[in-house]
Amino acid sequence: MTDRVMPDKAMSMERAGWSSEDPVQRPVMLTIAGDSAAGKTTLTKGLVEALGEANVTAVCADDYHRYDREERKTLPFTPLNPKCNYIEIMEQHLELLANGQPILKPKYDHSTGTFGRPEFVEARRFVIVEGLLPMYTRLAQACADVTVYLDPPEAIRRAWKIARDSTKRGYTKEQVVEELERREAESAEFIRPQRAKADIVVSFGPLQQAEDGLWPHAHAHEDSGGETLSATLLLRPTVTHPDLTSVLTDENRRAIHLKLIRDDDGKPVDALHVHGHAPPDLTHQVEEALWRGLEFGEDADLPQGIGGIEGVRNEPLAVTQLILVYHLLQLAAERR
Amino acid sequence: MTDRVMPDKAMSMERAGWSSEDPVQRPVMLTIAGDSAAGKTTLTKGLVEALGEANVTAVCADDYHRYDREERKTLPFTPLNPKCNYIEIMEQHLELLANGQPILKPKYDHSTGTFGRPEFVEARRFVIVEGLLPMYTRLAQACADVTVYLDPPEAIRRAWKIARDSTKRGYTKEQVVEELERREAESAEFIRPQRAKADIVVSFGPLQQAEDGLWPHAHAHEDSGGETLSATLLLRPTVTHPDLTSVLTDENRRAIHLKLIRDDDGKPVDALHVHGHAPPDLTHQVEEALWRGLEFGEDADLPQGIGGIEGVRNEPLAVTQLILVYHLLQLAAERR
Repeated sequence: MTDRVMPDKAMSMERAGWSSEDPVQRPVMLTIAGDSAAGKTTLTKGLVEALGEANVTAVCADDYHRYDREERKTLPFTPLNPKCNYIEIMEQHLELLANGQPILKPKYDHSTGTFGRPEFVEARRFVIVEGLLPMYTRLAQACADVTVYLDPPEAIRRAWKIARDSTKRGYTKEQVVEELERREAESAEFIRPQRAKADIVVSFGPLQQAEDGLWPHAHAHEDSGGETLSATLLLRPTVTHPDLTSVLTDENRRAIHLKLIRDDDGKPVDALHVHGHAPPDLTHQVEEALWRGLEFGEDADLPQGIGGIEGVRNEPLAVTQLILVYHLLQLAAERR
Repeated sequence: MTDRVMPDKAMSMERAGWSSEDPVQRPVMLTIAGDSAAGKTTLTKGLVEALGEANVTAVCADDYHRYDREERKTLPFTPLNPKCNYIEIMEQHLELLANGQPILKPKYDHSTGTFGRPEFVEARRFVIVEGLLPMYTRLAQACADVTVYLDPPEAIRRAWKIARDSTKRGYTKEQVVEELERREAESAEFIRPQRAKADIVVSFGPLQQAEDGLWPHAHAHEDSGGETLSATLLLRPTVTHPDLTSVLTDENRRAIHLKLIRDDDGKPVDALHVHGHAPPDLTHQVEEALWRGLEFGEDADLPQGIGGIEGVRNEPLAVTQLILVYHLLQLAAERR
């Protein structure tokens, strides 16, 4: 904590075990970044259920607002702007949790737009951080062992945000659309650059073409929330991904396939497609095979509680969560 | 932050400069512990004024309550009990401030008995921590460069608490007396042991005998708050105190004198008596001489704003604050 020269580097080195005398069992930390309504909560929920609530500390990184709703009215930026947040405190708290220390976390009440009683949060074996800017600074990013960026097609995300905010958060559709416009520039400037830093980029959405469609298509109608979702996972070589060769068979191709592509920036990356229109039984078999093929899979049952979106099971989401659970368990095993 | 083997030792070593690559200018930290109404706020106020508000971060360590007033009603302990507080978070925040890092500090609202909006606190050049339990743990204590325990005679403290809580905090005298009784056992168990850890023990109160009276007498009436206060400072050899030889003259003996004594535990200690009944002019001359005799005193004017108790100037308080200001400036100069 005292060495502030390249604190992110120091953190990376520590995580890599350079300070071998460290007696604290450091938690395994997964960070999920993404814009509002990108699916962060849904993704997190299944992971917590799969790993067991008692083993997971789930932290929302969006409580570090510097201003309450009233104060923000007179300010020229939205909550997406780092200036609108105590980013250095968020960073500090992630650093503490990554080191196994507890935090007294601020709590922003979305219903009143004011600050509530802070919450005592202990670092359990697994720490899942989700939010708008949890990878914004180098140190915050370095705290994570695996990083995910949720990147649904913008039209899908807008549809999700409108559906959620106009039901659960009491806004009119017009208000949500207006807010989306107001946030667009800051989303582009602060949120989306985190995509390039993530080990895994996840995009849920309806696929345009089963075989060739690289990305869930971006021209979805705003009412497309009800369509069957497929998932595309960019698996960057920044972490060691599970060996998928045993499940990438011709037989399973209708459910899952892997394709070597170039990302937007020209860099090579593996794109794993999980097809939402495949027979659920087939995808479920793939999940079973995938899990059995993993080092610890033979003894352990397929994790429960994955794949749920508001009570409905979605297999592409389940596969995504399965891969993340693999990463978390693998890292925990290495750390023992 | 990550080395939790003897964290207090690590902190002491760091303060001593072992981690020489540390690029952060660490603040100079003074910690003032003492029971409720022992005079912590009054002592702190003059120090802040003398050092300049822009240079000082003054932190009350009593905001780390684990329960609000309503919850405490059903609990078998008072706020003096470490169990009633997030002591590990208090400790963590002191460690952060000692390392020059900002904190998001919880805020307990004494008027409502609930938690308010947390406060962003940056570590300025000087950090003054005052509270009930700021030296309770070894690490919390190790964060401080100088520690003070405020130890007025119990009868005086009770009188002060009754006077304050029955005017400024809206309780009846009976309620305050009852609360004092309720807290007595926990005060003895948790607050008073901090006295033994302090570099300086300060006792304000009316002196029984000018020459021999070692301690402000313990038999003061509860209405003795209006009496002229003297001060006794135990200067433990745990820090380097200012050289007082130039002011400890026969001429000044009516205002100030030093006596080698044994403390309650039998250990040798210097007891500095500052007599409240001495002519204020004489004591003021002593202050001037004391200040001029210090390394940086010749160029610097006598600090302003010291000695004030609710608008009235008290010379023994001024001398006490002068000695503390000396310590803070001296440590800051060494750290440059």
